[in-house]
Amino acid sequence: MKLVKFKINAKSESPTRTVVKARDFSMIIDEPKHLGGKDTGANPVEFLLGALSGCLNVVGHMVAKEMGFDFHGMEIDIEGGMNPLKFMGKSSKERTGYQYIDVKIRPNTEMDEETLVKWAKAVEERCPVSDNIGNATPITINLSKK
Amino acid sequence: MKLVKFKINAKSESPTRTVVKARDFSMIIDEPKHLGGKDTGANPVEFLLGALSGCLNVVGHMVAKEMGFDFHGMEIDIEGGMNPLKFMGKSSKERTGYQYIDVKIRPNTEMDEETLVKWAKAVEERCPVSDNIGNATPITINLSKK
Repeated sequence: MKLVKFKINAKSESPTRTVVKARDFSMIIDEPKHLGGKDTGANPVEFLLGALSGCLNVVGHMVAKEMGFDFHGMEIDIEGGMNPLKFMGKSSKERTGYQYIDVKIRPNTEMDEETLVKWAKAVEERCPVSDNIGNATPITINLSKK
Repeated sequence: MKLVKFKINAKSESPTRTVVKARDFSMIIDEPKHLGGKDTGANPVEFLLGALSGCLNVVGHMVAKEMGFDFHGMEIDIEGGMNPLKFMGKSSKERTGYQYIDVKIRPNTEMDEETLVKWAKAVEERCPVSDNIGNATPITINLSKK
């Protein structure tokens, strides 16, 4: 099967502010003041967690429907922790990104816990964003003159 | 060093629409109509690419400043390709997420190509989002009753 492609275009409006276009939609990304930005939007690592929550929602509903139980949405809290030393150019042996990502899901359903554990496992396995974060994904960077 | 934590809270407003809160900011995530949504926002895998672009912008400026060359922003195009079969619950041996992510950067600078290649390598290595996508990151999912 031919791969389905998704694309974005991004322009840097300042050293911290990025305006992203995805089809007709915009994302405003910035850094908080204590990280050198003007705090005009969530920051890149918050966007990463947001992407994961959106994916879990879509796949969560899909899998519940396939498993045949009543499912009335969910609330998701996600937390990630990182050591910013390498990011800021100071030496660190630790990785620069999140060292862990903890997801707490409160599904709105009467389904029993055993079924929900199976559901959560299937959701994680099928969610494209959790695959791209949970497993290595090849990134190629090409440069061209403006 | 103690890890720095970032958090989001997300609520599913429909099977495809997710409203994310990150501090004072909101992200509206949805799916296009041909993927079952109402097209009220970019979709989760577009948000993932957006997060990557925002990170490359911040780190790109930081590294250029450290390397001591004039840098006036950049434009970034990112494309990813995936096979949606597993995502949709149809069997597939291929992974569910992006199989590749191609980044094209057009930096606005007079710096020579050799320096820019070093710059791009340092940016990729230090960007937390490219680390979390490029390398495996442990995700833990916990369930609790609503």
